[in-house]
Amino acid sequence: MSAPREPIEYAQASPEVRAVYDDIMATRGADWVNNFWKVLAHDPPTLRRIWANIKAVMGPGALDPLTKELLYTAVSASNGCHYCIASHSAAARAKGMSEAQYWELLAIVGLANETNRLVTALGVPVDERFQ
Amino acid sequence: MSAPREPIEYAQASPEVRAVYDDIMATRGADWVNNFWKVLAHDPPTLRRIWANIKAVMGPGALDPLTKELLYTAVSASNGCHYCIASHSAAARAKGMSEAQYWELLAIVGLANETNRLVTALGVPVDERFQ
Amino acid sequence: MSAPREPIEYAQASPEVRAVYDDIMATRGADWVNNFWKVLAHDPPTLRRIWANIKAVMGPGALDPLTKELLYTAVSASNGCHYCIASHSAAARAKGMSEAQYWELLAIVGLANETNRLVTALGVPVDERFQ
Amino acid sequence: MSAPREPIEYAQASPEVRAVYDDIMATRGADWVNNFWKVLAHDPPTLRRIWANIKAVMGPGALDPLTKELLYTAVSASNGCHYCIASHSAAARAKGMSEAQYWELLAIVGLANETNRLVTALGVPVDERFQ
Amino acid sequence: MSAPREPIEYAQASPEVRAVYDDIMATRGADWVNNFWKVLAHDPPTLRRIWANIKAVMGPGALDPLTKELLYTAVSASNGCHYCIASHSAAARAKGMSEAQYWELLAIVGLANETNRLVTALGVPVDERFQ
Amino acid sequence: MSAPREPIEYAQASPEVRAVYDDIMATRGADWVNNFWKVLAHDPPTLRRIWANIKAVMGPGALDPLTKELLYTAVSASNGCHYCIASHSAAARAKGMSEAQYWELLAIVGLANETNRLVTALGVPVDERFQ
Repeated sequence: MSAPREPIEYAQASPEVRAVYDDIMATRGADWVNNFWKVLAHDPPTLRRIWANIKAVMGPGALDPLTKELLYTAVSASNGCHYCIASHSAAARAKGMSEAQYWELLAIVGLANETNRLVTALGVPVDERFQ
Repeated sequence: MSAPREPIEYAQASPEVRAVYDDIMATRGADWVNNFWKVLAHDPPTLRRIWANIKAVMGPGALDPLTKELLYTAVSASNGCHYCIASHSAAARAKGMSEAQYWELLAIVGLANETNRLVTALGVPVDERFQ
Repeated sequence: MSAPREPIEYAQASPEVRAVYDDIMATRGADWVNNFWKVLAHDPPTLRRIWANIKAVMGPGALDPLTKELLYTAVSASNGCHYCIASHSAAARAKGMSEAQYWELLAIVGLANETNRLVTALGVPVDERFQ
Repeated sequence: MSAPREPIEYAQASPEVRAVYDDIMATRGADWVNNFWKVLAHDPPTLRRIWANIKAVMGPGALDPLTKELLYTAVSASNGCHYCIASHSAAARAKGMSEAQYWELLAIVGLANETNRLVTALGVPVDERFQ
Repeated sequence: MSAPREPIEYAQASPEVRAVYDDIMATRGADWVNNFWKVLAHDPPTLRRIWANIKAVMGPGALDPLTKELLYTAVSASNGCHYCIASHSAAARAKGMSEAQYWELLAIVGLANETNRLVTALGVPVDERFQ
Repeated sequence: MSAPREPIEYAQASPEVRAVYDDIMATRGADWVNNFWKVLAHDPPTLRRIWANIKAVMGPGALDPLTKELLYTAVSASNGCHYCIASHSAAARAKGMSEAQYWELLAIVGLANETNRLVTALGVPVDERFQ
């Protein structure tokens, strides 16, 4: 019972789950749904809620779509979430991220984690100009 | 002795520290140096090494300068490093980040931290298409 | 030598290790011991110390046993420790956690990680009423 | 501009922000709104979205209200978010958490963080019975 | 009620709390007790349990006392716990840590956090020789 | 494309990558290079930069080589980076770390993670003597 949940395929999904799958595919212009949603489908209220959030946050806004995926990938890489790195770096590549840009992203994630620790351990005071 | 280190101002700095401060200002086209460097100045080898890394990673490359600062800010926000958020969001604003873009960045950082936990706890299997 | 340690089964265990295994089984009313203890058994002082802590903290107290396991599972899910999620969610189910309760727990873990980042990044001041 | 955002009081709030404040107070049966919401109010879409999530996740469900606040507090304590610990432990106390229960919660948070690291570092294999 | 707990001084402490304070001072050859213990004193079972653990883990063993304090300081610096960095770096200094050693420790903490992210994001396979 | 990168063996490596591999082997007195470097080799600038940092930070200095590897292993264990624990604990063993010392290191890592949370959640004030 504590094992990883099996993804629920479209064919086995309830109408309310299919409605979310349909909206995901329509929003993305895709003909498939990735496993994250198929696992969340075990709890339809969570599926609906998280999709509504992703749709709102990752949809059209002040930042361009590629930048949004880069930010999502960077936080996921910093947190060490393999699935999230795989899915969001794939989305970033589909939106134009080059191999060189991915390596720069990883370099920034690594360096930020290094300097974050130095800053915190040393108690660096915030400069007046930053306030 | 364990208290936060005092920033070392240019006037009090040794020649080798001043050389790094000068390079920071020249690279940035700025007439001042922020406290992070003035605290690292207590250990010149660390000051030189970290600056060389920041200069290489944050300098011209495949990602544009604003995107780089957004990524640095996002990782710092995810890690909860106040000074790093203040300094890199200031740099991002100087490079053009709008208030609306900053709120979107924070929304992505928050959402990624939420879904990263759901994915990991549920053991979502990586889709074949992502491999 | 750096590979994951093999679990030490009861049959191969030393008397001092068996004494801890016996106490674990007696305390839990179980006829088996899970791998965490069988791996800690490579270092008997650590085995004894950690068991003494778990027994004290997770034993009868002000919180009921199910709530304690829910809290342990939530922190483990937040930290991304697969084994800990598996073992403590199994213990929580054995104490009555339903599938619906588990999904709510995960929703809270995810949401707390999201709002924690927003709060920290925005530097929200603590309300006087909370002090 | 990078400084912590000032809370926006009801008197200064726009109608759309007031609508959220009103819903928060009505839902909680309270006559005030805490700073988290007053800071999010700088970005109304984020304010509305996060409140919709909190309302859905922390509202009536399979877990009782006190257990939900305990879980939120535990994750916040594990993440080291001061404001979140203050606000959610206050909510938990209002729902009945005793001082003894709070100390047990903290003990579990601490112990889970200890054993999570031991489990991960030792690569403990998941028991068949947990799968 | 959610505010930070006031340290309990020796003069106000109960006999059972004083017994722990006495053991801390005797074990350390010190004439004072630091705030961590004075705050834990609000919950005597936690005070006794944590002190028993610290005494066992940080007492004489296979690693020398200075190395132990360096390790404690490094983990605390990596986690961003200000009080823990202050108290354990003070203990390390009292046991002989030099300023140069402290800077090297911080450099290792920073670098490990950087490479940990690169390794995890890139999914580096463990070399056979390490197994 | 998002799959883990394949290690690049010496035979397939470009001259600039071989130059780094050669320097790693010469510095370590080893006749092989571990997978971390073979994966970073996909981006030669990152390979060179990270090696330069490791060489500077982990080379001769104020802390002895074994202590440095213990610190690197401890931070990696705290962060849950499997590859990093495997590689740096192997390096620590090669420099003399005993099995008993490794268990003490893990005990300190676990305990520091426990007390770090208690300290942060309780808001323990820094003692004057530590400042």
